[in-house]
Amino acid sequence: MESRLHVITLAVGDLDRALAFYRDGLGFNSEGIIGIEWSDERTGANGAVALFTLDDGLMLSLYPRRDLAMDAEIDLSPAHGGEFSLGHLVQSRDDVDRLLREAEAAGATVTQAHDRPWGIYSGYFRDPDGHLWEVIWNPGRVPSPREGD
Amino acid sequence: MESRLHVITLAVGDLDRALAFYRDGLGFNSEGIIGIEWSDERTGANGAVALFTLDDGLMLSLYPRRDLAMDAEIDLSPAHGGEFSLGHLVQSRDDVDRLLREAEAAGATVTQAHDRPWGIYSGYFRDPDGHLWEVIWNPGRVPSPREGD
Repeated sequence: MESRLHVITLAVGDLDRALAFYRDGLGFNSEGIIGIEWSDERTGANGAVALFTLDDGLMLSLYPRRDLAMDAEIDLSPAHGGEFSLGHLVQSRDDVDRLLREAEAAGATVTQAHDRPWGIYSGYFRDPDGHLWEVIWNPGRVPSPREGD
Repeated sequence: MESRLHVITLAVGDLDRALAFYRDGLGFNSEGIIGIEWSDERTGANGAVALFTLDDGLMLSLYPRRDLAMDAEIDLSPAHGGEFSLGHLVQSRDDVDRLLREAEAAGATVTQAHDRPWGIYSGYFRDPDGHLWEVIWNPGRVPSPREGD
């Protein structure tokens, strides 16, 4: 298997709320909810999703938790965070603080950024579904202006 | 916030087991577990992780569930899947079936791939921690040889 991935799908409790957070709150670009006409007779999963093409070509997909569970043929469980985190590198310590403030203004829950002994300055925000993002300044790996923000 | 992400961290119950699955089972390249010397006095999180640099530069990180919860300052919850899925595009229907068989041989739980009404042929596998991967053939978006496998 090639070590590559093309899509990250986040399970959400309310597609409209999640879309509003990522599109209107964080400023990610999306055409909105698509695929509402589809339903998979075999699994019962519906097709409605909100898609974002990120700046490096990776696709971010918001998909109702119920539909992801049916599509993947697993039991539907109550939402909880802590299964994964998405890391976003920025170019300075100030950028970490600024971006966490912006996420908080958009409705996220945030932690206080601090220096971690493994050499980064970072803090987390949680989206409305509890999904974790870590905003990271890594002096050893500062993204280029094209790569970071 | 720029719509980009650089790291995907998966919470794992057993770092050795997860590393073995991704490195030895799927063939992803890693230098193994690093950072065992670090512990964050502020949160209690330890630094040991296994890192993989994927073919598009994205970093995949395996990190103990307990440490992620402490690092992100959330309650530690029992593991469960269905919060997210990682999508991997391949170039043909046969590649979907082959890759699911390979993942199953590596210890994953798989679903039977099938055509979905939204235009893809796909199936899922679950890694030893229950994290979902969807292996996808999308006739409308076949990855280039460089991009896909």
